[in-house]
Amino acid sequence: MVVLGIDPGYALMGWGCIETDGRRMKLLGYGCVETHAGTPMQYRLRSLQMGMRDLISIYHPDDVAFEELFFGHNVTTGLMVGAARGVAIIAAVEHTENLYEYTPMQIKQAITGSGRADKHQVQQMVKMLLNMKEIPKPDDAADAIACAITHCQAGRSKEQFRMK
Amino acid sequence: MVVLGIDPGYALMGWGCIETDGRRMKLLGYGCVETHAGTPMQYRLRSLQMGMRDLISIYHPDDVAFEELFFGHNVTTGLMVGAARGVAIIAAVEHTENLYEYTPMQIKQAITGSGRADKHQVQQMVKMLLNMKEIPKPDDAADAIACAITHCQAGRSKEQFRMK
Repeated sequence: MVVLGIDPGYALMGWGCIETDGRRMKLLGYGCVETHAGTPMQYRLRSLQMGMRDLISIYHPDDVAFEELFFGHNVTTGLMVGAARGVAIIAAVEHTENLYEYTPMQIKQAITGSGRADKHQVQQMVKMLLNMKEIPKPDDAADAIACAITHCQAGRSKEQFRMK
Repeated sequence: MVVLGIDPGYALMGWGCIETDGRRMKLLGYGCVETHAGTPMQYRLRSLQMGMRDLISIYHPDDVAFEELFFGHNVTTGLMVGAARGVAIIAAVEHTENLYEYTPMQIKQAITGSGRADKHQVQQMVKMLLNMKEIPKPDDAADAIACAITHCQAGRSKEQFRMK
C-alpha cells in the first residue's frame, strides 16, 4: 500500500510518500509544493493543484492522509489555507476516495507515544522509523511524512479517520 | 461580454450570469450550487467544482466576478468557505484568467449608490436594473447577480479589481 501524506499550506504544501506492507515502511519521496507571495491567488492555487496532480500521477497512492488544520484567530490566513486545502482535497479525490485526516495531536501520539511531544521529538522519530540519515527538511515535509506514518500505523482503526 | 458572478459558499454557492453590451444588461440565468450537510467534505467540494464547470461550459463567461469573503471569529466556517472559494477559483481559472473580486461594500455602493444599504435595498435594485418580476431567490443567488452587475458597471476602473 502506498500512502501520500499532506500538510496543507498556501505558501508551502508539504508531502511525504510511504510504501508499507503492513509491517515495514519505506519512504518513496518527500518535499514541498511551493507558491510565491506576489503571485495572484488563482495561479498559486493552480500551482498547488498541479503539484498535487503530479504527485498522484507519480506515486499512485492508495490512500491520502491529510494533517488537519487548526488556527488561532487569524481568519485571513484561515481563508487562504482553507483554499489551499480545498484544492488539495479536490485533486486527491480525482484519483481516490480514500481520504483520511489526522489532528496534530493524533500524529504526535502515533509517532512518539505522547500527544504533547515537541516538533523536534517527532522529527527525530520520523528519521529513526524510516532509517533516514538526516531529519527531513523543511518542517512542512517532515509533518507530511509524520502524517503518512500515522496512517500506516492506524491499522484497523483507520476507518474512524476517514474525512467527514 | 458575459459576466458570471459568484457568491462563494460551502452549503450554497450563489451564481448569476449577465450579458452586457457595455450599456444594457441582460440576465442569462441565476441560481445556487447546493451541497448537503452529512456528505463527506471531499464530495461536497467535488460537487462545487462540477457545478462551477457546468456553469462555465453553459455560459462561457468572459469574466468571473467573485464576492470577497469576510468573517467574524468563526475560524472553522472560514476554513470551509475558504475551501469552497478555492475550489470555485480553480474551476474558473481552468477557463479564463479574467477573475475579479469585489467587497460587499463595493457591491452595495455600485448597486444602490450607498455602501451602507441593506440587503433588501440591494435586492430591490437588482430586480429593477434587470427588469425582473420578482426579487431573485435565494439571497446567495441575488448576491451573485449583484456582484456580476457591479463588474458590468465597473467599466474602465475594472482592472483594479483583478484578483490578487
